[in-house]
Amino acid sequence: MEYIDLRSDTVTLPTQEMRDAMYKALVGDDVYGEDPTVKELEEMAADIMGKEDAMFVTSGTQGNQVSVMTHTHHGDEIILEEKCHIITYEVGGIGYLSGVQAKTIRGINGIMDPKDVLSSIRTDDIHFPKTSLICLENTHNRAGGTVIPLSNMKEIYEIAKAHNIPVHLDGARIFNAATYLNVDVKEISRYADSVMFCLSKGLCAPVGSIVAGSKEFIKKARKYRKMLGGGLRQAGILAAAGIVALEKMTKRLAEDHENARLLAEGLNNIKGINVDMSTVQTNIVMSDISATGLTGAQLSSKLLDYGIKVNGGNDYTVRFVTHYYIKKDHIDKVLHAISAILKEQ
Amino acid sequence: MEYIDLRSDTVTLPTQEMRDAMYKALVGDDVYGEDPTVKELEEMAADIMGKEDAMFVTSGTQGNQVSVMTHTHHGDEIILEEKCHIITYEVGGIGYLSGVQAKTIRGINGIMDPKDVLSSIRTDDIHFPKTSLICLENTHNRAGGTVIPLSNMKEIYEIAKAHNIPVHLDGARIFNAATYLNVDVKEISRYADSVMFCLSKGLCAPVGSIVAGSKEFIKKARKYRKMLGGGLRQAGILAAAGIVALEKMTKRLAEDHENARLLAEGLNNIKGINVDMSTVQTNIVMSDISATGLTGAQLSSKLLDYGIKVNGGNDYTVRFVTHYYIKKDHIDKVLHAISAILKEQ
Amino acid sequence: MEYIDLRSDTVTLPTQEMRDAMYKALVGDDVYGEDPTVKELEEMAADIMGKEDAMFVTSGTQGNQVSVMTHTHHGDEIILEEKCHIITYEVGGIGYLSGVQAKTIRGINGIMDPKDVLSSIRTDDIHFPKTSLICLENTHNRAGGTVIPLSNMKEIYEIAKAHNIPVHLDGARIFNAATYLNVDVKEISRYADSVMFCLSKGLCAPVGSIVAGSKEFIKKARKYRKMLGGGLRQAGILAAAGIVALEKMTKRLAEDHENARLLAEGLNNIKGINVDMSTVQTNIVMSDISATGLTGAQLSSKLLDYGIKVNGGNDYTVRFVTHYYIKKDHIDKVLHAISAILKEQ
Amino acid sequence: MEYIDLRSDTVTLPTQEMRDAMYKALVGDDVYGEDPTVKELEEMAADIMGKEDAMFVTSGTQGNQVSVMTHTHHGDEIILEEKCHIITYEVGGIGYLSGVQAKTIRGINGIMDPKDVLSSIRTDDIHFPKTSLICLENTHNRAGGTVIPLSNMKEIYEIAKAHNIPVHLDGARIFNAATYLNVDVKEISRYADSVMFCLSKGLCAPVGSIVAGSKEFIKKARKYRKMLGGGLRQAGILAAAGIVALEKMTKRLAEDHENARLLAEGLNNIKGINVDMSTVQTNIVMSDISATGLTGAQLSSKLLDYGIKVNGGNDYTVRFVTHYYIKKDHIDKVLHAISAILKEQ
Repeated sequence: MEYIDLRSDTVTLPTQEMRDAMYKALVGDDVYGEDPTVKELEEMAADIMGKEDAMFVTSGTQGNQVSVMTHTHHGDEIILEEKCHIITYEVGGIGYLSGVQAKTIRGINGIMDPKDVLSSIRTDDIHFPKTSLICLENTHNRAGGTVIPLSNMKEIYEIAKAHNIPVHLDGARIFNAATYLNVDVKEISRYADSVMFCLSKGLCAPVGSIVAGSKEFIKKARKYRKMLGGGLRQAGILAAAGIVALEKMTKRLAEDHENARLLAEGLNNIKGINVDMSTVQTNIVMSDISATGLTGAQLSSKLLDYGIKVNGGNDYTVRFVTHYYIKKDHIDKVLHAISAILKEQ
Repeated sequence: MEYIDLRSDTVTLPTQEMRDAMYKALVGDDVYGEDPTVKELEEMAADIMGKEDAMFVTSGTQGNQVSVMTHTHHGDEIILEEKCHIITYEVGGIGYLSGVQAKTIRGINGIMDPKDVLSSIRTDDIHFPKTSLICLENTHNRAGGTVIPLSNMKEIYEIAKAHNIPVHLDGARIFNAATYLNVDVKEISRYADSVMFCLSKGLCAPVGSIVAGSKEFIKKARKYRKMLGGGLRQAGILAAAGIVALEKMTKRLAEDHENARLLAEGLNNIKGINVDMSTVQTNIVMSDISATGLTGAQLSSKLLDYGIKVNGGNDYTVRFVTHYYIKKDHIDKVLHAISAILKEQ
Repeated sequence: MEYIDLRSDTVTLPTQEMRDAMYKALVGDDVYGEDPTVKELEEMAADIMGKEDAMFVTSGTQGNQVSVMTHTHHGDEIILEEKCHIITYEVGGIGYLSGVQAKTIRGINGIMDPKDVLSSIRTDDIHFPKTSLICLENTHNRAGGTVIPLSNMKEIYEIAKAHNIPVHLDGARIFNAATYLNVDVKEISRYADSVMFCLSKGLCAPVGSIVAGSKEFIKKARKYRKMLGGGLRQAGILAAAGIVALEKMTKRLAEDHENARLLAEGLNNIKGINVDMSTVQTNIVMSDISATGLTGAQLSSKLLDYGIKVNGGNDYTVRFVTHYYIKKDHIDKVLHAISAILKEQ
Repeated sequence: MEYIDLRSDTVTLPTQEMRDAMYKALVGDDVYGEDPTVKELEEMAADIMGKEDAMFVTSGTQGNQVSVMTHTHHGDEIILEEKCHIITYEVGGIGYLSGVQAKTIRGINGIMDPKDVLSSIRTDDIHFPKTSLICLENTHNRAGGTVIPLSNMKEIYEIAKAHNIPVHLDGARIFNAATYLNVDVKEISRYADSVMFCLSKGLCAPVGSIVAGSKEFIKKARKYRKMLGGGLRQAGILAAAGIVALEKMTKRLAEDHENARLLAEGLNNIKGINVDMSTVQTNIVMSDISATGLTGAQLSSKLLDYGIKVNGGNDYTVRFVTHYYIKKDHIDKVLHAISAILKEQ
């Protein structure tokens, strides 16, 4: 049985074109800096992000963690939005790997108030850690794929610069943000000193993400990547798919956003389900099903019988994520299945 | 010039009785476990806290940090109130020393909602750090010396126990809390697996704090204390003052609380100054002087000319702390000085 | 120009069969545990090593570091041979990632004297870290690909067990060791609680290594791998090549060993070059060229003109490593080139 | 029963003059920088060591660990003599607190060969940690209180400077070294960027050590000291004894050395006991009692019946340390007791 898998865009399989590219990829030992395909991907990625240099990493988590390691020293404090991916889903890595303390700010749809950022920066006092990094996430995963406006990023970036603090952008889905904002991705990445984005997820590469930044930053980051075991040998196999991802997959994301919007509207028409349409900006739909009497896990389990996979836990939230392998007719099937399930209740 | 020093109760000098006790103290090499005065203090402290064992540490920060190190493993997550001392004033130690990630909860007067604590405990998932500690602070310093009610502590403690998570209590001023609640201190410490309290501050010992907990906990903690350089040689000198602190100073704190109340009421009678009396529970008074047009630092600077020291920063908050060396007539002098300063405005 | 590349077996390119396998690989989201090819590889690898479970990692460094992280706690001490890969080439990871102190033992050809291991185990004392791991490396890279005898491994393993200390084996080239010893690889891995080996290097997979151990160990290790960013999505692409590596490449290593022996003998016949034949056991040849008057870097540079790459530094050692892409006639070319270079001196 | 305690010079009790000084000490809150006695001690100590600034710490371990933390970054490598105090007796702190990897060098009587130091410094390579500190220990405790010659220190210091690497000196007993070398202590401390020495041990203060270095170094170190809980309140109590230690106790150490020599010679006259007189340079005597058939622990236990304490473990070494409270007639008693014990064998 082939599933309609809306759990995440991480489930996307490589496209045929990626398979072909991987098959034919020229490769070398990348620890020696001799893999031509990795080099090509890294140069292309740096160029797209408007940064001096870039580095292939094996996952978004590795990209974020290496960036925090590179920007900070043990004992520093870093500022992040309370529900961001780094805090929520990266196994506590910032404490373990970077030895930093998190100062979290409660955002609205993932958007931090620049005033809160400003007041969170520590002064020089023997009791205080040094504030050495501000992290942003755009689109913001747990807020429902919401987009941080450029004006907000700019304001925070300027505060950071005024205090000589670097900004890291978790841009795992930065191309979704650029699509929503209808701007070149550089318009987003310019408000960050380092940016991580994923070649997997919406872009369908099987494995890999990119960290981009200054030459000096990337040089230092490569050493941390090596320590984490991210120094690969013939990584060109993976990089070849990454090149296809950047060349062919970044422009089609509007389709996923459209499908997400259709799904959200459809869900809102189902009694007992509520979606805040203002948060449906990209390819993620967070639905509140509390009025159905079902938990997320319960609905998720029932949908499995219909060949549909979604992410639902012990609360009343169900997350749907659209991607390359979700077509308009899948959306219809999902809506029908949910309607049918709730009627049986 | 002798100052009226209300910056903190940490400025308290040892009493004459403490000087005498230190002079005559029997001492030995405590790294070998041979200092009789340290042993006496540790046994007395364990007994007072109702715990199996106790350990002398050189400061509240050392006591808290060693406790976090002992309860957790690197990579865990711990739950704390957003403005607690551990997060605010301990130099980012939990990240540096314990490698843990902080999950902070916004409390009201330092009091966390047990529902927030419950929902912050992580489930078992490969993306999540393990929640391995809940920290409480009673009285809560930055909230203004407010007291966490026993019912709240009990509720959080029960949640913790149900999830097999230890609770650490930063009880730097636990005797102030006990005085306010009019209970034996054991009624507070029972809702924590480990408790740190200070012999300095309101109790006037020159140096030192205590960590109390189970025998197994203290045994493990001693090794971490040694690593931090807190394994002392003839520490009985300091312990002798600590014994006086416990025997003579814990019962007199009501006097400090009364003086704080007098001060707070007096401040409220001065135009432009506002104190939320509901937070004036122990020996700390947090005043809002924004209506005076002065910053905390400005008022603090003007008070210096009157021989008065207070803690004021670049915002509009001034903190006053009463203690053994602040008498009722000092309060009057402080109120007169502030009135005089504001009249000159 | 196609080089004869003897710098390392890490330069091996994937074979055609691997390319085919990667092209057709069934894949899924391995973070969700849904990649069938990764699962197949991990089961195969566990079986081959005689362990309960196994985990794919992106490099030998990641495998070693995750193993140390999983076996130890911060503040422990671990015992390793002085020149082992973990100490030499892993960017100081054991300090950074695991917070452990290294107790290094000087071995002979990488072989530690069990008496030294025994006397290095710490007793229980408040001044001492806990000894929580012993690491072995077989074959031993820096010693020249030498093999640790089974009797030595057994003796150290028994000491470890008697002290309740786990043993980790860096078996990056364990199949080379098994080939030399003419035993099933399980005869080696049995003397270790966890074993890391590489699918790249002599086995030619483009990317990847395996950690094998108990179910409980691997479960814990998976979480650390996730934190380091080694939790991949459609990793089956890489795993497919790994399966070919295990099925087709482990039995042919004797050919590499034979070529290394030929090379070593040839080098010994060249005036000014000395190879200790007793250390030429597998696919690595360490040569002393001090009598030539050239440094390793100088000879290495001259060989480049002949289309030959070797590893030589500022001392008088040159390392040659044979592998799948080095044939007997390459050895002859290398020997001729070196003779020619030295004649010109 | 009053013991003749030769286990360590850490057992020394404060002198009467120290008791008096502590009783009368002017004190203040040192976290606010307001303790005049601490300030006096720190200035005196900096002056004696020929450094810009100095800082009081609660133990030698704290002083060493804070120094390593201040000089290095997590992930660096540091060079130390294999049996030095930092490696042996500081609970693995350099891994836990500083996240550094130890590169240990086997010395002779604690003296490292400068060639070994030089060859241990890492070059710039993506596989290598950065060498960021060299640690010396003078006198060298485990080598038996042996003195590192100034010429050796100078040579290592020059290598360090040529590579831009700081040198830290564990000078816990630096005044014993100066006494032996018959030089001003500055002649030793000049070959180190930071130096730690103890006010306790031979100098008899009850608690405390000093770290001295540049103004910038000490400023940074104060923050780490605060994090470890070494920021004390009215520390002048302890500092007062430290001042006496520096003023009165540093010049009398020759007496302890003479007693150690007498003891060593006496031991050599006892059948079955051997002391290498070349190592008896200061106040420590390491004796080999293997020919007696007794272990160190056994002899130590028998000496207890004579009111004598020494340090003996499960091997055949017994350590004796002379100090202020060991007089010439105690040496005679110890020698008689040992003779008597061995006759009974």
